[in-house]
Amino acid sequence: MESNLHVYNTLSREMEKFEPINPPFVGMYVCGPTVYSEVHIGNVRTFTSFDLIYRYLLHLGYKVRYVRNITDVGHLLDDSEEDKISKKARLENIEPMEVVQRYTVDFHDTMKLFNALSPSIEPTATGHLIEQIELIEEIVKGGFAYESNGSVYFDVQAYSKNENYGELSGRNIDELLVNTRELDGQDDKRHPADFAIWKKAEPQHIMKWHAPWSLGFPGWHLECSVMSTKYLGATFDIHGGGMDLKFPHHECEIAQNKAGYGQDPVKYWLHTNMLTFNGRKMAKSEGTGVTPRQMITGDHPLLTQAYSPMTIRFFMLQAHYRSTLDFNNEALQAAEKGFKRLMRGVEDVQQLTAEPTSSLNIDQWKADLYTAMDDDFNSPIAIAQLFEGVRYVNLIKDGKEHLSASDLSLFQSTFTGFIHDVLGLKSEDEGDDGQVDGLMQFILQLRNEAKERKDYSTADSIRNTLQELGFVIKDGKDGTTYTKA
Amino acid sequence: MESNLHVYNTLSREMEKFEPINPPFVGMYVCGPTVYSEVHIGNVRTFTSFDLIYRYLLHLGYKVRYVRNITDVGHLLDDSEEDKISKKARLENIEPMEVVQRYTVDFHDTMKLFNALSPSIEPTATGHLIEQIELIEEIVKGGFAYESNGSVYFDVQAYSKNENYGELSGRNIDELLVNTRELDGQDDKRHPADFAIWKKAEPQHIMKWHAPWSLGFPGWHLECSVMSTKYLGATFDIHGGGMDLKFPHHECEIAQNKAGYGQDPVKYWLHTNMLTFNGRKMAKSEGTGVTPRQMITGDHPLLTQAYSPMTIRFFMLQAHYRSTLDFNNEALQAAEKGFKRLMRGVEDVQQLTAEPTSSLNIDQWKADLYTAMDDDFNSPIAIAQLFEGVRYVNLIKDGKEHLSASDLSLFQSTFTGFIHDVLGLKSEDEGDDGQVDGLMQFILQLRNEAKERKDYSTADSIRNTLQELGFVIKDGKDGTTYTKA
Repeated sequence: MESNLHVYNTLSREMEKFEPINPPFVGMYVCGPTVYSEVHIGNVRTFTSFDLIYRYLLHLGYKVRYVRNITDVGHLLDDSEEDKISKKARLENIEPMEVVQRYTVDFHDTMKLFNALSPSIEPTATGHLIEQIELIEEIVKGGFAYESNGSVYFDVQAYSKNENYGELSGRNIDELLVNTRELDGQDDKRHPADFAIWKKAEPQHIMKWHAPWSLGFPGWHLECSVMSTKYLGATFDIHGGGMDLKFPHHECEIAQNKAGYGQDPVKYWLHTNMLTFNGRKMAKSEGTGVTPRQMITGDHPLLTQAYSPMTIRFFMLQAHYRSTLDFNNEALQAAEKGFKRLMRGVEDVQQLTAEPTSSLNIDQWKADLYTAMDDDFNSPIAIAQLFEGVRYVNLIKDGKEHLSASDLSLFQSTFTGFIHDVLGLKSEDEGDDGQVDGLMQFILQLRNEAKERKDYSTADSIRNTLQELGFVIKDGKDGTTYTKA
Repeated sequence: MESNLHVYNTLSREMEKFEPINPPFVGMYVCGPTVYSEVHIGNVRTFTSFDLIYRYLLHLGYKVRYVRNITDVGHLLDDSEEDKISKKARLENIEPMEVVQRYTVDFHDTMKLFNALSPSIEPTATGHLIEQIELIEEIVKGGFAYESNGSVYFDVQAYSKNENYGELSGRNIDELLVNTRELDGQDDKRHPADFAIWKKAEPQHIMKWHAPWSLGFPGWHLECSVMSTKYLGATFDIHGGGMDLKFPHHECEIAQNKAGYGQDPVKYWLHTNMLTFNGRKMAKSEGTGVTPRQMITGDHPLLTQAYSPMTIRFFMLQAHYRSTLDFNNEALQAAEKGFKRLMRGVEDVQQLTAEPTSSLNIDQWKADLYTAMDDDFNSPIAIAQLFEGVRYVNLIKDGKEHLSASDLSLFQSTFTGFIHDVLGLKSEDEGDDGQVDGLMQFILQLRNEAKERKDYSTADSIRNTLQELGFVIKDGKDGTTYTKA
């Protein structure tokens, strides 16, 4: 297993040659969604980026175990006490797991629309409470956490004696001291930078479990430490997530792992960049919080039209995962055209025929394609190279260039394979609808010609046959239209 | 909330009027799949039956919380010791949760093909270990279980002093004593009828957790007691499952709930019957273990053709859920025809036009439809009544019967709504393909007519236009055929 892949490691702030710990195995952990609301288009970008990374690693021949968690421990509160008393039955009360189910199903449906592969494992926070409690016990035992009023806090100062809390995000403790504004439970902490790894539940808190310290729930950062270690080992290859997770989430993960398992967990940290809309940060409060569903239906004031899932995926892949990406109608419409052009290339490339010799250097073209992806998964450059391939297709079609049988076969398999398997782009099956419409327009034209030559029996027979096939024909002053019955 | 629904309760062995504990709420728990292999077509039947029940309850206006668990605690063993030592990394070893993920995704995809609604909650066994350990502690505390060599066994004799172990399945302890052939761990049990609620793990067992008795795993029956109670309350309305689960699984569930929570958990026990193939029990070992995927592709020696998911669903609904159902090609082919006839009815009913008066009694027709479903969800009778509806459609179309505007509107909404919402049947979108084929046959006929009258320019123009639309035309001695390019 030899590749020339290089990745940008957030921890070292450098490009590094990708050398997995136990090749050909690769362990990759990505922080997944919190399933208490509809997934945000920014999340979709993050998961699409890691889908590209997962696909490329598989394409290179690595045996990848891709773990993406589901955060299902939520902080829903029950209704007020009076209301609660009036409700006798369990069924009358809100059940967090019902919310979890709705948005988990929705998340899976959404990612399937965007043609993302399922991860190898999708562990849930509620599925790993015993392991989380055990990790807390280890951290306490090591002197890196303390109990306070039923909650347990990670002791950042104790940890910082020998470790660099802030190594990933570049923050330092003094700065954190000034910037920490979290007041809830602040009195229980020895230091404002300390963070909860177990929280005692308030009475109205619904999701809670018995643990040695209280009836409570684990701190959010904990689940990722536990689940990545359980499924990938104490040190694994890639940890990914949106860059808003660098601090505090990922910083805390490193600290928990080092304090509890005694090991630096991650070799390569990969972070995806943020989305904007019309140049502004996406936020529900500002009216720019567009959901994937709204993008697909076009049902949002900022959208001038609907965009297909593959158009959106293609649009996302046209930016590098570490660049910010601005959603706007002009750029999305350009992507729609570009995507169609690329898919036409996929159709056309199969129709090409070979000549005795080649006038194009396909080996070089292919090498450039892989060079782009080997450069930290640079999909925009790879896509540009694929458009160069579309140009080749058209030149060959027009007889201006030609390929030998072996070059043509290499070109076809690389071009199509890369678009389908690595970029995860697929035809959107408009084929049939397009064909129905094409056939209908043609038949209506034949009917018009019959009417023009006053062959009304043919014109009527066409109308009747179409009616039997489920089409309603309407002759208006602007011509003839049809609808499906 | 008033309905006239009656259900057959396995516990009382009688039809009973359905009266939920806290109307309009209904709590329903169904034992879900074990996700260590592809789901069996018999499981699909069970889940399709409960999908029908869920849909009908929703249709009647009940607020249903439908819980269907996923058994993800498996008994995979690790490789032999030598092999294990040679593998240094976590990633090189088999990971049960990777198997779980594959078959969970597959299960969801399959149920979606059969148009089953997602349950309200799909809890996992691994997600409820703390709750399971707590229930074991309660059962031990009550004197209904004992520890033995790190495992914990339910004490059937102690329980039977005041309770009737066997009330659901109709078995008695003496019989159980004679019939119990389970040897594993038998020495640890006080009585052969006792069953494990916690098992100490052998060293090669992969999935195991720390509990007060040992590093081990919960007995299989336990998860359903815990998860039904957690999400539906200590006593809830409906518990369902395949009838092979009556004993020991459901019998043990009742015993665990009564011993641990002090309550009889379930008001109505509903059990689905088994499938056969060509009159024989389905079993992998006998070559009759057909998977849903094989039914859909037709790729099994016993299948003479492929069957669409809706054909299979319709076929299943044509039998009552408490009847055995025999899969065979003749019956499936008949169902395929019947399903198409029903869907043609759905199309045609919308085309009917009203008259001033009615010659058919639609109120009676509708009442009969609901009477069928109110009789323990008798879908075969309901389907027969819908075919009576198809007969009405055709009579009205032929002008032999007629409906007033209000009767027609009632007939249309009941007929269509029942098929879509209650039976969960939908058109399989062959519409387009059928339409493409219909249009193509028509155009090819026009082209033949042109050729016959020696109008070759029209014939050629048709061929060229079709080619542009992606069709390849072939003139052979048996006529003209086309393929999609």
